[in-house]
Amino acid sequence: MTRNLGISAGSATTLSAELIAAGFLREVEGLTREAGRGRPPVALEVVPDARLVIGIKLSDALHTAVLTDFAGTVLANASQPTPDHRKSVENILTEVSDLIAALLANADRSLSEVSAIGAGLSGLIDHNTGMVLWSPLLDQRDLPLGPALQQRFGLPVFLDNDANMLTLAELWFGAGRARSDFAVVTIEEGVGMGVVLGNRLFRGSRGIGLELGHTKVQLDGALCRCGQRGCLEAYVADYALAREAATALGRNAHNLQSASVMLDKLFAQAKAGNVSARTIFRRAGRYLSLGLANVVQLFDPELIILSGERMQYDYLYAEEVMAEMRALILADGREPCPVEIHAWGDLVWARGASALALSAVTDMALGEGWAG
Amino acid sequence: MTRNLGISAGSATTLSAELIAAGFLREVEGLTREAGRGRPPVALEVVPDARLVIGIKLSDALHTAVLTDFAGTVLANASQPTPDHRKSVENILTEVSDLIAALLANADRSLSEVSAIGAGLSGLIDHNTGMVLWSPLLDQRDLPLGPALQQRFGLPVFLDNDANMLTLAELWFGAGRARSDFAVVTIEEGVGMGVVLGNRLFRGSRGIGLELGHTKVQLDGALCRCGQRGCLEAYVADYALAREAATALGRNAHNLQSASVMLDKLFAQAKAGNVSARTIFRRAGRYLSLGLANVVQLFDPELIILSGERMQYDYLYAEEVMAEMRALILADGREPCPVEIHAWGDLVWARGASALALSAVTDMALGEGWAG
Repeated sequence: MTRNLGISAGSATTLSAELIAAGFLREVEGLTREAGRGRPPVALEVVPDARLVIGIKLSDALHTAVLTDFAGTVLANASQPTPDHRKSVENILTEVSDLIAALLANADRSLSEVSAIGAGLSGLIDHNTGMVLWSPLLDQRDLPLGPALQQRFGLPVFLDNDANMLTLAELWFGAGRARSDFAVVTIEEGVGMGVVLGNRLFRGSRGIGLELGHTKVQLDGALCRCGQRGCLEAYVADYALAREAATALGRNAHNLQSASVMLDKLFAQAKAGNVSARTIFRRAGRYLSLGLANVVQLFDPELIILSGERMQYDYLYAEEVMAEMRALILADGREPCPVEIHAWGDLVWARGASALALSAVTDMALGEGWAG
Repeated sequence: MTRNLGISAGSATTLSAELIAAGFLREVEGLTREAGRGRPPVALEVVPDARLVIGIKLSDALHTAVLTDFAGTVLANASQPTPDHRKSVENILTEVSDLIAALLANADRSLSEVSAIGAGLSGLIDHNTGMVLWSPLLDQRDLPLGPALQQRFGLPVFLDNDANMLTLAELWFGAGRARSDFAVVTIEEGVGMGVVLGNRLFRGSRGIGLELGHTKVQLDGALCRCGQRGCLEAYVADYALAREAATALGRNAHNLQSASVMLDKLFAQAKAGNVSARTIFRRAGRYLSLGLANVVQLFDPELIILSGERMQYDYLYAEEVMAEMRALILADGREPCPVEIHAWGDLVWARGASALALSAVTDMALGEGWAG
């Protein structure tokens, strides 16, 4: 443990003792390895029943929640379709109440057994205060969603950008366990990014996270739903593809109910050889390759993970997109940064939200306090 | 000290004892403040004579060097014009030899009194190995400049990207002393960036630094001297302005000897109302504002420092450029990231190189070894 974390054996012993005293860790009998010189290494395991937490992913069309134990094992999950429009905080509170009631019913547990809630949504979230500065899900700017959830459920609530949540899921449970520096780029309703530097989630100097989707890839470019022009998101996200779909699909497009159905149709047409449909995905892929190349030039990560619902559209990570990304990075003779595709569903995002809560609960027990 | 560094008092005491034992720090008599409870705080000062180091900035037209003591005080400096073309390692070694000889003569010191050399140049530098993977100053890729300098002078040599050097100068001696997270963007022959995160220079996961100048701001855009298209540098750097200058200045341009003279003429013409000259600077300013906005979206620094020779051209940081930068950042109701202009000369860059050497000498003395 100490080797991987880069902390001294002494610090690890002190920390372990505190976690054992708090009931979070316990020594495992009969598992100590053959001793060399000095004190033999001690095998420790997380005490799964120490605490339960809830992790929630809020999104446009469906909210998802998991109940996990302190070892991160998912005990139950629940999801709930929601109307696809901008909501008030009161709407969200009601929807989350219903979701949590369903989750606890599935697990046959009560809210009194839960220690904390982690929740994530897209937009500009101030992790330190729980304020939602801007989100496509909400009807106003600057809403105190974290404090409102906290008051409603009487529990500590930790709020974060949904891309950060997914990055925590990779760091705790996924490909990130073996890497100290990696980036997770999410393509869903929008384009998000989480970055791990030195084994820690990097949220920027003000704790609001990174906004890859709103980096500019074209001066005076395509209109973004943030109101500005030329954002990466305005070329790659669902709505960017959907608004050109009507042109490519002709009158058929008007019969399609949602952006998601329209994109599935567009994708099928592209596969069938519709040139207009192909050029929509091709352009999205080229701008994505530019955005990823910029991430490599600015963070030089060991790995980029592409994730999210849109990973079902392989045009976004076709070999030509990856080749274009490599061609846009300053050649230095080194191996190019590997890119992995992880088409996780919403449950994994919610699991990341539970990791946010577990991490905060541990910090609280160790006396570092928390900002909820 | 322990408060600002975020390390424990115990760790600080151990570290201080090691630095005192190595002769780098000493206790100052009569300066201890009024004692509260516990051990009184001890005033320490750096021992200036502990070591001398040389810091060097290599560049297209002029190499610059400083000799500093262990407190970072500059004892002497020297500079030397060089022919503006791509050089072999052997050329550079000869030029650096002459430069160091002049520097030591100015200081009336000998090379035997020097502990280490720090040096910086633009390009892709592997700080860990001293390899220059690519630089506009050198005639080939993948040259072991660090090891070659080390062999020539029989001293440890620490090589870095020149933007990182300037960032170290800000961190050690400048505006960065009061900030934990800031970015330094340099505009000279090229566009560079150094980023400090949590009081440390962030070099990316592979130690080669960040390449803001080669982030892409336009698909299939202007040709960059790296051979790719659409790099920020290809719109903002000297050569990008100079190649349009002939069009704006007409036949007069052919009489101008260097890019620098041509740019001065272009700037004077823009100030005098030449519309073509104005549009060159205006476009450079707009792309710079886009590049800076992307830095804010991805790092959210507390401060951006613009530095370098081109800061004499105020079109690059005119109020309209700053306003455009702010308009390209996702609005979140917070104060915009402040931008400061520091038009440092080459001496400050060289001083940053000396900070690189001082830092490495300290690490070596503390037994962390060094990679030269």
